[in-house]
Amino acid sequence: MNIIIDFEKGAGLVPVIVQDADTKEVLMQAYADKEALELTLKEGYAYYYSRSRKSLWKKGETSGHLQKIVKVMVDCDEDCLLYIVHQTGAACHTGEKSCFFRELIK
Amino acid sequence: MNIIIDFEKGAGLVPVIVQDADTKEVLMQAYADKEALELTLKEGYAYYYSRSRKSLWKKGETSGHLQKIVKVMVDCDEDCLLYIVHQTGAACHTGEKSCFFRELIK
Repeated sequence: MNIIIDFEKGAGLVPVIVQDADTKEVLMQAYADKEALELTLKEGYAYYYSRSRKSLWKKGETSGHLQKIVKVMVDCDEDCLLYIVHQTGAACHTGEKSCFFRELIK
Repeated sequence: MNIIIDFEKGAGLVPVIVQDADTKEVLMQAYADKEALELTLKEGYAYYYSRSRKSLWKKGETSGHLQKIVKVMVDCDEDCLLYIVHQTGAACHTGEKSCFFRELIK
């Protein structure tokens, strides 16, 4: 890996944006630590770090709603990732395709 | 606002994903505190909180690269926002349209 991800700015974590490769819909946002990113790149499926459970987490491991990685993009200052994925089933635990299914009322 | 944003989980900040309303390209990721979100909703242009400068920041205030808000979406657990915007010029300070212009080498 030629690009060094700045995990320190976020106390060991970087935010990950997840986008559907086909529809370009933003599906969810989660966090990755170094281990989660390495496993994601190695296995080609999305891994995250759960802040609430304080542990590594393979998306869809129990639900079957896996995210197959198409591309991993990094932002200009190397402290945020964008996973472009093929999503099996729903990304959201509510059953919605995307976690962003509600608009804030202005 | 009927939805209560959980700013506390991120020590007063929530990550904001910014997506182009027309192309659906993910443009950047930044952070908002309560004041930034309120100004965004009130004025219809994107405001953020800069972690490095520790201050409120109107996107494009100096560069002219404003982000006109089309919609503000919130995720299922109310700790992340998605701004759908009309971007004037480039979103990235490098001159690229999106901050995610590089792919991580696998």
